Amino acid sequence: MSFEGKPITCKAAVAWEAGKPLSIEEIEVAPPKAGEVRLKVLATGICHTDAYTLSGQDAEGRFPCIFGHEGGCVVESVGEGVTSVKPGDHVVPLYTPECRQCKFCKSGKTNLCSAIRETQGRGVMPDGTTRFSSKGKEIYHYMGTSTFSEYTVVCEIACAKVDPSVRLDRLCLLGCGIPTGWGAVNYTAKVEEGAVVAVFGCGAIGLSVIQGAVAAKASKIIAIDINPAKFDMAKRFGATDFVNPKDFGDKTIQQVIVDNYDGGADYSFECSGGNVEVMRAALECCHKGWGKSIVISVAASGQEVRTRPFMLVTGRVWMGSAFGGVKGRTQIPDFVKMYVDGSLNIDDYVTHELDLNDINKGLEAMRSANCIRPVVHMFRE
Amino acid sequence: MSFEGKPITCKAAVAWEAGKPLSIEEIEVAPPKAGEVRLKVLATGICHTDAYTLSGQDAEGRFPCIFGHEGGCVVESVGEGVTSVKPGDHVVPLYTPECRQCKFCKSGKTNLCSAIRETQGRGVMPDGTTRFSSKGKEIYHYMGTSTFSEYTVVCEIACAKVDPSVRLDRLCLLGCGIPTGWGAVNYTAKVEEGAVVAVFGCGAIGLSVIQGAVAAKASKIIAIDINPAKFDMAKRFGATDFVNPKDFGDKTIQQVIVDNYDGGADYSFECSGGNVEVMRAALECCHKGWGKSIVISVAASGQEVRTRPFMLVTGRVWMGSAFGGVKGRTQIPDFVKMYVDGSLNIDDYVTHELDLNDINKGLEAMRSANCIRPVVHMFRE
Repeated sequence: MSFEGKPITCKAAVAWEAGKPLSIEEIEVAPPKAGEVRLKVLATGICHTDAYTLSGQDAEGRFPCIFGHEGGCVVESVGEGVTSVKPGDHVVPLYTPECRQCKFCKSGKTNLCSAIRETQGRGVMPDGTTRFSSKGKEIYHYMGTSTFSEYTVVCEIACAKVDPSVRLDRLCLLGCGIPTGWGAVNYTAKVEEGAVVAVFGCGAIGLSVIQGAVAAKASKIIAIDINPAKFDMAKRFGATDFVNPKDFGDKTIQQVIVDNYDGGADYSFECSGGNVEVMRAALECCHKGWGKSIVISVAASGQEVRTRPFMLVTGRVWMGSAFGGVKGRTQIPDFVKMYVDGSLNIDDYVTHELDLNDINKGLEAMRSANCIRPVVHMFRE
Repeated sequence: MSFEGKPITCKAAVAWEAGKPLSIEEIEVAPPKAGEVRLKVLATGICHTDAYTLSGQDAEGRFPCIFGHEGGCVVESVGEGVTSVKPGDHVVPLYTPECRQCKFCKSGKTNLCSAIRETQGRGVMPDGTTRFSSKGKEIYHYMGTSTFSEYTVVCEIACAKVDPSVRLDRLCLLGCGIPTGWGAVNYTAKVEEGAVVAVFGCGAIGLSVIQGAVAAKASKIIAIDINPAKFDMAKRFGATDFVNPKDFGDKTIQQVIVDNYDGGADYSFECSGGNVEVMRAALECCHKGWGKSIVISVAASGQEVRTRPFMLVTGRVWMGSAFGGVKGRTQIPDFVKMYVDGSLNIDDYVTHELDLNDINKGLEAMRSANCIRPVVHMFRE
């Protein structure tokens, strides 16, 4: 039976208000309008950003809302004018879309497509309305993806089409964490062979930085974490050195890296989950003259990074990366190829697998040290 | 009569202690040791950095000392092993030397030669001693150049040999301000044709940034200063737009630039003389996705720059530049060529010309809005 052009009733994890557990509800998903695509979500990862917005600290967060931005999906139906995907195609939805027509896409300098940014930030589709409702209430979208629902609606420009022969319960992680870390190394920083790379934080993003640095043929990959339990996985992903900042008494981690690595790191990556002091340490551990530090995390609103300007004047570069500088529609298929040929590890990120009914357990699990990514199977039961 | 191998008695402006006027004294200048060169200083510029260290705020400042780092000089004699310059050669001394052998010089990524950095910072020559004395007291060097003296001693690696047919009372300004601004645009930022460039501060460095941006064929060069008297000269040097932050009430200058220049500057340069709030404004006025901001000034010790990390994560790049990224021995001759062929304006920087006896008047003049650079003639009387 086809629901094309009709609403679909399905299950979703709804965040009715900040700070409360998600609630599994029956919702209605309206059909896609022009330029939109309705997706069946087979699997979704859970990212710290989902938990952060749910906590209420994200100033942009609007409720009620359906979170989720790491989806492995199949196209159910398409709206008017959609040509790049068709029903049955496998896609990873993109919170950083790629319209290929805006000033940003055309610049060749950034992946920060601006086409739908404003409405996406407000939790609505480009026409200003939402496709979700439950119990007579409208429910907002999240990051333009909302993958904590059996069905979701996204823009065509936010669909990265992927090889349909590859498991969607793995490819879903290409929606955020993996490209973010890997791309920060290879697209944003452009790490070169032989470089010394410092990675602050060994969660999913940090591990992806490590994988990216291996691909870039870095000579040293220094995994830094205050939780040494993370080092096993960091080693498995290719880190060569392991530093716990707590092992050095009053000495700052930046001084430890500068002293022990011949002047410091050629590149550093901040994957701490938004700690501005770690961002500073990551900059200041860089080698004078050329060290580049890439901020990847999003800090809580109101937080500021700081340093002495001397650190910049003496040749360090402070920059950032969003979604790893990845142009999703163009480049996510390359990540799929790397997964298929074995050069990109996705499987080891999946430390927890759950059904939609248990999604709150997945959010809980994110707080434990042994969790990298929970993957939620939407239709497994 | 040759003084080769013997001390020279001459005049110099000595800073006996912080915060006091310079004192014109007879001093002794010892002959150059191995790898060193004794220079006759024909002319010297006065830079804000000299005044800053004299004020006592510079934590690295040591007294008594001979300041000055914009010299136009002739080689008087050379020490053992010196091969790249000989007596009679014209040189501009370099506070950022170029040894071509240290890790930094060999990296190809920076001009921050480390060969003599440590002793230079302590006000002595590489053997740990000073070549200056007066009234039986040792006098420290400054920035490895000390051009406020009729004779000075510098390292061979700090001598940029220049065309002897060109006026040294103009080439002296190639010792700091002009390469610093011009190089920040063309070597550090690598501004490309058509770019929108914002320049914060229209002193000597800012004017040099403007000249550099003209050379880079920027489409818009926005001169920003709270003193509109500076705009005439900025216009003469090639600025196209003129913005006084005081004209916009409570609106920040970064918001003014973002609103009026289609999202902001592609490149911004901070030439404010060390104001960390201006450094922040310069970063935040940059275009999302690709804007690069270059800190050029040196801030007072203890001062810190800050911003929201979101500014970096959304694609702005914060970097700095010292001596414009210029490798002095290799590249200063190119600046001389530009001056000779008329593509680099040096003459208009020289707003005041003085004799050594009046050097304190030159330091005074630096505080007035109509002063760009005073040039001190050491032997004009």
